[in-house]
Amino acid sequence: MSLTELNYAIDTLFILVSAALVMWMAAGFSMLEAGLVRSKNTTEILVKNILLYALACICFLNVGYQIMYGDSTPSGYAPKAYIFFQLVFVATAMSIVSGAVAERMKLSMFLIFAVIMTAVIYPVSGSWVWGGGFLSQLGFIDFAGAGVVHMAGAAAALAGVLILGPRKGKYGHSGAIYPIPGANMPLASLGTLILWFGWLGFNGGSQLTIHNIENADSVATIFLNTNMAAAGGALAAFLITRLIWRKADLTMILNGVLAGLVAITAEPAAPSALSATLIGCGAGVIVVLSIVALDRLKIDDPVGAISVHGVVGIYGLVCVALTSASASLTSQLIGAAVIFTWVFSCSLIIWWFLNRAFGIRLGVEHEYTGADIAECGVEAYPEFVSAKGR
Amino acid sequence: MSLTELNYAIDTLFILVSAALVMWMAAGFSMLEAGLVRSKNTTEILVKNILLYALACICFLNVGYQIMYGDSTPSGYAPKAYIFFQLVFVATAMSIVSGAVAERMKLSMFLIFAVIMTAVIYPVSGSWVWGGGFLSQLGFIDFAGAGVVHMAGAAAALAGVLILGPRKGKYGHSGAIYPIPGANMPLASLGTLILWFGWLGFNGGSQLTIHNIENADSVATIFLNTNMAAAGGALAAFLITRLIWRKADLTMILNGVLAGLVAITAEPAAPSALSATLIGCGAGVIVVLSIVALDRLKIDDPVGAISVHGVVGIYGLVCVALTSASASLTSQLIGAAVIFTWVFSCSLIIWWFLNRAFGIRLGVEHEYTGADIAECGVEAYPEFVSAKGR
Amino acid sequence: MSLTELNYAIDTLFILVSAALVMWMAAGFSMLEAGLVRSKNTTEILVKNILLYALACICFLNVGYQIMYGDSTPSGYAPKAYIFFQLVFVATAMSIVSGAVAERMKLSMFLIFAVIMTAVIYPVSGSWVWGGGFLSQLGFIDFAGAGVVHMAGAAAALAGVLILGPRKGKYGHSGAIYPIPGANMPLASLGTLILWFGWLGFNGGSQLTIHNIENADSVATIFLNTNMAAAGGALAAFLITRLIWRKADLTMILNGVLAGLVAITAEPAAPSALSATLIGCGAGVIVVLSIVALDRLKIDDPVGAISVHGVVGIYGLVCVALTSASASLTSQLIGAAVIFTWVFSCSLIIWWFLNRAFGIRLGVEHEYTGADIAECGVEAYPEFVSAKGR
Repeated sequence: MSLTELNYAIDTLFILVSAALVMWMAAGFSMLEAGLVRSKNTTEILVKNILLYALACICFLNVGYQIMYGDSTPSGYAPKAYIFFQLVFVATAMSIVSGAVAERMKLSMFLIFAVIMTAVIYPVSGSWVWGGGFLSQLGFIDFAGAGVVHMAGAAAALAGVLILGPRKGKYGHSGAIYPIPGANMPLASLGTLILWFGWLGFNGGSQLTIHNIENADSVATIFLNTNMAAAGGALAAFLITRLIWRKADLTMILNGVLAGLVAITAEPAAPSALSATLIGCGAGVIVVLSIVALDRLKIDDPVGAISVHGVVGIYGLVCVALTSASASLTSQLIGAAVIFTWVFSCSLIIWWFLNRAFGIRLGVEHEYTGADIAECGVEAYPEFVSAKGR
Repeated sequence: MSLTELNYAIDTLFILVSAALVMWMAAGFSMLEAGLVRSKNTTEILVKNILLYALACICFLNVGYQIMYGDSTPSGYAPKAYIFFQLVFVATAMSIVSGAVAERMKLSMFLIFAVIMTAVIYPVSGSWVWGGGFLSQLGFIDFAGAGVVHMAGAAAALAGVLILGPRKGKYGHSGAIYPIPGANMPLASLGTLILWFGWLGFNGGSQLTIHNIENADSVATIFLNTNMAAAGGALAAFLITRLIWRKADLTMILNGVLAGLVAITAEPAAPSALSATLIGCGAGVIVVLSIVALDRLKIDDPVGAISVHGVVGIYGLVCVALTSASASLTSQLIGAAVIFTWVFSCSLIIWWFLNRAFGIRLGVEHEYTGADIAECGVEAYPEFVSAKGR
Repeated sequence: MSLTELNYAIDTLFILVSAALVMWMAAGFSMLEAGLVRSKNTTEILVKNILLYALACICFLNVGYQIMYGDSTPSGYAPKAYIFFQLVFVATAMSIVSGAVAERMKLSMFLIFAVIMTAVIYPVSGSWVWGGGFLSQLGFIDFAGAGVVHMAGAAAALAGVLILGPRKGKYGHSGAIYPIPGANMPLASLGTLILWFGWLGFNGGSQLTIHNIENADSVATIFLNTNMAAAGGALAAFLITRLIWRKADLTMILNGVLAGLVAITAEPAAPSALSATLIGCGAGVIVVLSIVALDRLKIDDPVGAISVHGVVGIYGLVCVALTSASASLTSQLIGAAVIFTWVFSCSLIIWWFLNRAFGIRLGVEHEYTGADIAECGVEAYPEFVSAKGR
């Protein structure tokens, strides 16, 4: 019984609580995506989310962790707490992909990609930043993973979407864009609020230690700033959608929340609470414009994941150069470019190969009937009469 | 590395975990209200809940906190943990309002009120109790905010409801009262259970410190009592509704849970577990009677928020005089009256002014079509065929 | 201010956070069961879940705790934290019953049984294992309650199902089995993810202390292993259903997750992370086979609770003999048999008596119309047009 043992205990408890909150983010992504797709594809997106989480844990534990961190073991807290915390981060990255490729990709192809992404692609670029690799030596700062986790997930998603093409009926002739509303807004809102809650652990836990005044202050700052960035993102996304379309678009507000959270993830400990709010506001504006722009480019992302995690992830990495004295714009941009290029290239090759070899897209008829019947054999809401959404 | 630093660390961790649980209550109110309104007003109530949370954080951080606590900074734990904990309390108060005015108020008017409530009204009365003001000097005891937070929210809600009037179709001629059932009972139940869970942080965290035996015992007592009061509230509300209407009315049971939680909030550390259960039982009975009574008075509160947080909030404050040696019935009643009068009067003036200047109520046609289409341009469940609820 | 006080504080905080997570499992069971029944029985299953939780807390606090633990009070952490942690465990056991008897049992009969189960039946067998009774002296190991909590719940459920009989329309002539799909897959998935999250507290908190390196390492191991077992269960259940039926059956995958969690509950601290994954995989296979087998035996369990908690609970107890040096297969089997026999016999007698005296089953017409209208007087989704499910 000593101070050292107590430090060890409190830091372990802190990491475990944080890791549990990040695990809970799996529910957030599941509900968000289940709410934003059509009802005919809901069961399948739930299957994807649960299985990608399971696969991410198994693949990263047995293969990826070694690639990312080698044999180094942390001291000062329980090593297995650290491992659990790392596992759930990988699952987050992979969750981003499932949303972007929703409603038209075969389940089996998605799962094969999930294995490669979480066992190899993510750990390699992760090692460059958090495993003591060249990006960390370059001065690239990415505190909790705006680049390593979120932009990486978005890069893999973008590659998949490009190979996959848009959903049938999304884009018409002469530039027409048809909105495909999600089937269940309360679920999407619940998912976003779960992510908001869990993100406190995602960013806060990344401090990894809380046992003295300095670290405790940092963790508190991170909790406050993470919350304020989300609030700023929500407000800005609301104001801009109200300004442009005269309506309070809930989906955009939810994406504003998530954008604020992604943006602050790059460096949540340095800015003041007001700066964090403003960073979140910027993210809320950018995500709305990005979603509109991607739609014009016919890059069909049913949940806006590429904008939320990719475009805003880069914005967050750039913001670090403004708020953190030890960061430089150059190294932030290099880091973003390197991670993006690595993940996007690998992913493009794999999606391309899978498509060539097996076809990654559901058959036309299956896409029309819905992935639920085609892949899962059941409906998500079997008793409710469906009016539209076909 | 010292005992002092560890005390600081453990108290900070304790407050941050508690604050995260209170933040999560935002999801509870969102789901509860989304489940208890009709489907045509679901998206809009979700927008209101997310934006009121964002606004509460931004307004209280930048204006309200200074009014409520001045320049005093806590020591013994991270100041920003304390600030975050305070922020989320304000959001709770404002969440109470959104439910009571649901299904008929303009979004813009609601948001303007939210700004004033969280920046000024709540902080002023809050300062009288928790900022060292005259009510605390009078011996008024409100441990975690049955009055400061819950009854204050309900007072603002009542003022709004009086200016706004009931929903179309709620009250007929010669005293007829038409029930308007909520569209989604599982959502409402989920919301209640989220609030039950989060309330452990709301009440427990209000102890603010856990680093020695005395405080740790207090926090444990609070957790247990908070849980038992909710259990008592559920059981009593069930028994009385079963007795009166021969049916187990889920909505009333949910309100019984919440009533138990509100009642114990005034002083969760003093009573025994059995007393806490009985306080909860009392709350469960009162809330059912109050909901019926308000309906007879044609005060239309779609989710029962005024009864749950207001009537039961006062009951909780009164109970303190029975369970806590240091409290007197007189000072509890004075405190309740002062907070109510302040918040109700200010709110009435603001709602009246907003109504006079802009109209706070949706147009008749918009109310008929639903706030979702009018304010948000989307439906909450676009694919499901709706049978009733119009 | 001393090391001893800090140890006390950190262990209390640890137990309270864990207990809060287990309380939150009540939401998990509620959503899981609400998603897996038909929409006409949804409100009633929510009522059952909330009331059973309330009753379990009240009955165990005032009667059961004394039976299970006598007058012994733990030291080293706040006694009331321990009591709260124990309360929520009992509620978990009772939650298992509600799912298995869903869609056809009278609410009042269920509640009477809940009182007896949580006040007497569970505490008696619990005392044999965790109260220093003869099973613990025999060397029976059940770390967090795969037998004491989960198999006990399943044994009570099995007895109820045998007295109650299957739902109308479930089994046809000449061995036909008709699937009755759950009405809301996202809810069922949410419930499972809530349980996954909460289970970290269920198993982790059972260590009861975290204040030194040895215990902190144990808790971290438990968190990691619990998560990996769930991941293994999900993956195995997916693979076997895909193999047999060519479809990714979401309900089976969810049951695979829960089976992995139940299996590791018997001894989550001893195995390696890989062994935990494999234990989970075994559970995922067993649960699928068990659900199919029980259906062939015309034991109608709408949510698969008897397989998940009972059959897999026994499997988990047996696994301990393989992973823990101090366990023997014989004592594990004796423990399982004793607990099962006790709980099953008592439950059978009580269900039989209740059935004889009052009838535990809903009337045929009420079963057809649905328990929501019969017992609660409201529908769960009153606005949505229902196509099937009758």
